[in-house]
Amino acid sequence: MPLPKPVAALAPPMPEPLIQRFKAIVGDRYAITDANDQAPYLRDDRGLYIGRTSLVVRPANTEEVAAVMALAHETGTPVVPQGGATGLVGGHVPHETGAEIVISLNRMTAVRAVDPAGNTMTVDAGVTLQQAQDAATEVGRLFPLNIGSKGSCTIGGNLSTNAGGTQAIAYGMARDLVLGLEVVLADGRIWHGLRTLKKDNTGYDLKHLFMGAEGTLGIITAAVLKLYPAPRSIEAAWVAVPSAEAGLALLNAAQERAGPSVTGFELMPRNLFDFVLKHLAGARDPLAEPSPWYCLMELSSASASGMRETLEEILAAGFEEGIVTDAALADSIDQRNGFWRLREGMSEVQKMEGGSIKHDVSVPVAAVPAFIAEAVAACLAYMPDCRPVPFGHLGDGNIHFNVSQPVGMDKAAFLDHWDRVQTIVHDIVAKHGGSISAEHGIGRMKRDLLPGVKDPVAMDIMRQVKAVLDPKNILNPGKVL
Amino acid sequence: MPLPKPVAALAPPMPEPLIQRFKAIVGDRYAITDANDQAPYLRDDRGLYIGRTSLVVRPANTEEVAAVMALAHETGTPVVPQGGATGLVGGHVPHETGAEIVISLNRMTAVRAVDPAGNTMTVDAGVTLQQAQDAATEVGRLFPLNIGSKGSCTIGGNLSTNAGGTQAIAYGMARDLVLGLEVVLADGRIWHGLRTLKKDNTGYDLKHLFMGAEGTLGIITAAVLKLYPAPRSIEAAWVAVPSAEAGLALLNAAQERAGPSVTGFELMPRNLFDFVLKHLAGARDPLAEPSPWYCLMELSSASASGMRETLEEILAAGFEEGIVTDAALADSIDQRNGFWRLREGMSEVQKMEGGSIKHDVSVPVAAVPAFIAEAVAACLAYMPDCRPVPFGHLGDGNIHFNVSQPVGMDKAAFLDHWDRVQTIVHDIVAKHGGSISAEHGIGRMKRDLLPGVKDPVAMDIMRQVKAVLDPKNILNPGKVL
Repeated sequence: MPLPKPVAALAPPMPEPLIQRFKAIVGDRYAITDANDQAPYLRDDRGLYIGRTSLVVRPANTEEVAAVMALAHETGTPVVPQGGATGLVGGHVPHETGAEIVISLNRMTAVRAVDPAGNTMTVDAGVTLQQAQDAATEVGRLFPLNIGSKGSCTIGGNLSTNAGGTQAIAYGMARDLVLGLEVVLADGRIWHGLRTLKKDNTGYDLKHLFMGAEGTLGIITAAVLKLYPAPRSIEAAWVAVPSAEAGLALLNAAQERAGPSVTGFELMPRNLFDFVLKHLAGARDPLAEPSPWYCLMELSSASASGMRETLEEILAAGFEEGIVTDAALADSIDQRNGFWRLREGMSEVQKMEGGSIKHDVSVPVAAVPAFIAEAVAACLAYMPDCRPVPFGHLGDGNIHFNVSQPVGMDKAAFLDHWDRVQTIVHDIVAKHGGSISAEHGIGRMKRDLLPGVKDPVAMDIMRQVKAVLDPKNILNPGKVL
Repeated sequence: MPLPKPVAALAPPMPEPLIQRFKAIVGDRYAITDANDQAPYLRDDRGLYIGRTSLVVRPANTEEVAAVMALAHETGTPVVPQGGATGLVGGHVPHETGAEIVISLNRMTAVRAVDPAGNTMTVDAGVTLQQAQDAATEVGRLFPLNIGSKGSCTIGGNLSTNAGGTQAIAYGMARDLVLGLEVVLADGRIWHGLRTLKKDNTGYDLKHLFMGAEGTLGIITAAVLKLYPAPRSIEAAWVAVPSAEAGLALLNAAQERAGPSVTGFELMPRNLFDFVLKHLAGARDPLAEPSPWYCLMELSSASASGMRETLEEILAAGFEEGIVTDAALADSIDQRNGFWRLREGMSEVQKMEGGSIKHDVSVPVAAVPAFIAEAVAACLAYMPDCRPVPFGHLGDGNIHFNVSQPVGMDKAAFLDHWDRVQTIVHDIVAKHGGSISAEHGIGRMKRDLLPGVKDPVAMDIMRQVKAVLDPKNILNPGKVL
């Protein structure tokens, strides 16, 4: 991902009368034209994309979103829908041309209904993931989606990008946690699909079309989410394993013994753990001796008991078979949270080690060890001092195959290798039948790569569906397709 | 559902040269023109629909399906895709006009690959559900989809109709069990989407568009299915409960205590159980005293132990609270299978009691008792001697609200009331925000009802998607839309 090139051509500024028409919908107070006030809406967290716009609108409700889209459709004004602005592929950032307006859903923060008896919750798109989790917890339920940015990312963005995260192994991706949607279409019509039913076979499943479409087919304004019983027992272990293969064997053993109670299973290499120990305040190694690889394994259950015993059995069998060399079991919630902090710190600490070339890839679960070995070897062959730090959600075959720069190298010079390193890694992903975007989406970053990795018929169908649902190509143009 | 009216207009017979072109693709032996040989392909199990056709083709593989569709597209020949022909809404039966050819996938029966390490299985569309379950069992895995017709229904049909069944409570509907698809489009192109990945966010999720579309958007020719660890302990109980409300309370208690280990939860009324005891060979009541309602509850787990104890705890707490009045626990696999035979016999025995007006509906789980009470009262108000026998998948809010005829009434005279009874029941479903087709689909039976219950914007989107993927309207025309 080379840094975006400066663009020569700016779009002509939006005519003032049109700006006034948009302002009239949301009110002056919620229409942002000042460059300083716009700034947080025009960038991504990594600073890879910085966009421009004439206008950011912050509608109060679904009807205002619909009115904005109706006007955008009438006038051919392209729009970028935005939630918590935490996306990692530039999907939420307007282009540098300034042609698009930004529609932020960050004022739509109502938890519309919580139904613990029916195990559902209906929320506005602008509710943060943390707020959604808290609303579930308050009624003794679990909303299991969990990603690092939960404090600021929003449900609308989570669904539009089909977010993954650490609990996908047991509860699925974001799309698997949804019963119904409310969506504003390109022309301002509203699809009222907020159904709370577990089974409904009346026609095509439209909700799955809008989820994962990154705002290119419609704007998700509200959703009915599934809730689960709050787990009564949660056990976690920080486990030293001699190899990625051993990690995979441990995963299989855990799932054979505990099935859906395996609610987390992360794989991490020692070199990345060293970054954590060096840079993360308060981090310390739970084990006495270093190990080449670690797994963070979590079991949880609605039953009040039994998980500790199951965890110990799995680990004891692992010791016997030589796939586990040491393990620390969390004896308190604090300890368990501490293990997760070590894992969650792994994104942050890479910044302190300079430039990082990142790949969010997946392969079939059984192919993860081979993929890692081949990709590490290929990166080292290309640049002997680079530092691959592959880690992530082993249970989903989803590895964040990141490559930190050689110690002492110039950061910009290293990042100039992005495209070549990416080609090396993605070629090995393709060999294993994998995906170049496991959970972050396509957005702008991977748009040009998509036709090279996707079945051409699938690309055709996507273009056909896009053309019919957004004939003027005003919904997040230049993203995904 | 009145019996189909005889049609006056037959389509002109297909020209012999065109028949020869289709025959040349699949071979004479697999192109059926003889009326007797065609008969099994032209009807549904209830005998509600009897169609006509010039030709049934039975392609050997995906390429032949693609060639058939390319020719159908070129010549504007409408087609009806068919799997095991077990559908309950006439979706798989050609119209009486004889205009359509039938494409049966019943020769495509290869289990292409089974990967227990990766927990996936790739199968042709014509593999029966029973064969798919067996292929999983052979490698120590579970394919959890389970419906009464498993011996003859096929995976292609299961996915095209998004089948539900008894284990949906824990494992989801058919669509939730799929990682990848291979689909032949209306014009004969093949979408090669047989991915085995747990996470893949590269563009729109097309597989969910084809699943549940009942063959109107494309023909599913193969699928990658998810496998699960085979459960090591399974416990089942036949439970007497005083009311549907008590059944719901027991369900909630079970899920709070056992979460995803509750792999079956069925609700059944005494009058329907009486039909079973009267008509099902070898059936006997597991309990000493009759009860107005019963639940069949199953718990299963990948752990080797613990389920019996959990089941007993749930039931003991239920006794305390008065929501359970008696229960029989299965002490052997035979006993457990016996409980399930009582439940599965409930569809069959209704035939022995004369005419039955059937509704496959769902409401939010918490609304099931109110829905049942209101719908029973309304039916009895309309026809005091009719016998409502509401039963089904309480855990999914999915009730088969069937109404058996009054004793001694003429069957045809009773069935003449179908539309009025259906309106009574569906109006109460609508009041509770429910669905008129929980798991059987729309097909032909509910096609004319759909616009009345579906959001008009959703109907528009469905028509737009249909028009772009099947511009000549040759894929199962007159079904769903």
